[in-house]
Amino acid sequence: MSEPPSEDFVQSLARGLAVIAAFDGNHPEMTLSEVARRADVPAAAARRFLRTLEKLGYVRSDGRSFRLTPRVLELGYGYLSSLSLPEVMEPHLRELSAELAESVSAGVLDEDDVVYVARIPTRRIMSVSITLGSRFPAFATSMGRVLLAGLPEAELRERLRSAPRERFTPATLVDVDELVAEITRVRERGWSIVDGELEEGLRSMAVPVHGRDGAIVAALNVSTSVGRHAVETIESEFVPRARETAAAIEADLR
Amino acid sequence: MSEPPSEDFVQSLARGLAVIAAFDGNHPEMTLSEVARRADVPAAAARRFLRTLEKLGYVRSDGRSFRLTPRVLELGYGYLSSLSLPEVMEPHLRELSAELAESVSAGVLDEDDVVYVARIPTRRIMSVSITLGSRFPAFATSMGRVLLAGLPEAELRERLRSAPRERFTPATLVDVDELVAEITRVRERGWSIVDGELEEGLRSMAVPVHGRDGAIVAALNVSTSVGRHAVETIESEFVPRARETAAAIEADLR
Repeated sequence: MSEPPSEDFVQSLARGLAVIAAFDGNHPEMTLSEVARRADVPAAAARRFLRTLEKLGYVRSDGRSFRLTPRVLELGYGYLSSLSLPEVMEPHLRELSAELAESVSAGVLDEDDVVYVARIPTRRIMSVSITLGSRFPAFATSMGRVLLAGLPEAELRERLRSAPRERFTPATLVDVDELVAEITRVRERGWSIVDGELEEGLRSMAVPVHGRDGAIVAALNVSTSVGRHAVETIESEFVPRARETAAAIEADLR
Repeated sequence: MSEPPSEDFVQSLARGLAVIAAFDGNHPEMTLSEVARRADVPAAAARRFLRTLEKLGYVRSDGRSFRLTPRVLELGYGYLSSLSLPEVMEPHLRELSAELAESVSAGVLDEDDVVYVARIPTRRIMSVSITLGSRFPAFATSMGRVLLAGLPEAELRERLRSAPRERFTPATLVDVDELVAEITRVRERGWSIVDGELEEGLRSMAVPVHGRDGAIVAALNVSTSVGRHAVETIESEFVPRARETAAAIEADLR
């Protein structure tokens, strides 16, 4: 815990949430000591948290190992159902995905990250494995740049400056001035493309979705790979179709 | 809290989770006193939990009211991504939904409830509004009966006996013997139909999805309304198509 102790900070809540977050696709089932290690809490505390979560129905145990139950969905879905955006967007994203035969997603900005709130994966074997709730640094993703383009320039610059900017590939833009210039271009033409900056071979484009008041509420993204589609195809085919989809969603939101 | 105090029970974790769960589609944004009331915790405690959740990035506040951030998705999606089932099922459910023009879902059993782990809603205006993580009493739903049919008879009877069995409509079966008879019929013919037992006018069918070892891992459901499809249509059209979809999912799981 890097958080300084404070009267207002309930450490056992923070640690209990860290225990839940320690479970993922690679660690669906863990022993007590694995949980303690991954959640970075002492074993005795991990034991009390797991027992409490078990009594509340969030965790199940066979005595030796622990796994989450579907009840944890209630925690995350309070957010999703309050958003209502995914429900509105999903049928439109599905249509676009079927038409282009590519994965289509939607995301929102959360601090320095873009977070997936809807996703239609393709059945392709080599498709990208991303689940709802996944987060990526906004500066290096097509959705993130569309969302950052909605910020006033001073705030944009300040956000970029303070965000960790990892060089994921040799192509990743990390210089603040270069990023501001690119994001200004995204704002002007109304869409973004990120080509191999987050991962080699991953090519992705995004357009903004505007709410009733004209503000950007989400980004809509189509991702493909270098081998499947040229940048020119993305510009001539994906961009107009993604814009039509965004317009249809915006009409539904009105 | 009905839970008796125990050395192992971390009450502040339980209360903090109740604060997160207090937010939903009808209460996406709440004041401190609303949160305290809905989570059933004293206001002073609610304030400390909200501040802690804010510091951890799970809650955002404008000073007066509070809302969840997309970070809470991390809590629920640890479960979903560990399941992998929804990802496998989704494209198949989507195809079935497009073919039948009805909402298609998948669920798993959690104690006395069926919990939605995948859902393809239709664009129909009068469609049923259910999000992932929603739960319904298993005994009164088509998915629940298919999942309960996977239990050994003695355990089934015991589960039904101990579960709260609310009479949602005049048609709801609540008698344990009658339910055991109906669920035995479901096991024999391999599918279930629930007609107006959970809600007047709601008609729903389900088939089981089996895992590699032959055990039932999920139920797949198509729901419609009394006005749209007769019981005969469900039997002659929905059942064979739902079975084909389940078989395709089972092939993917192998």
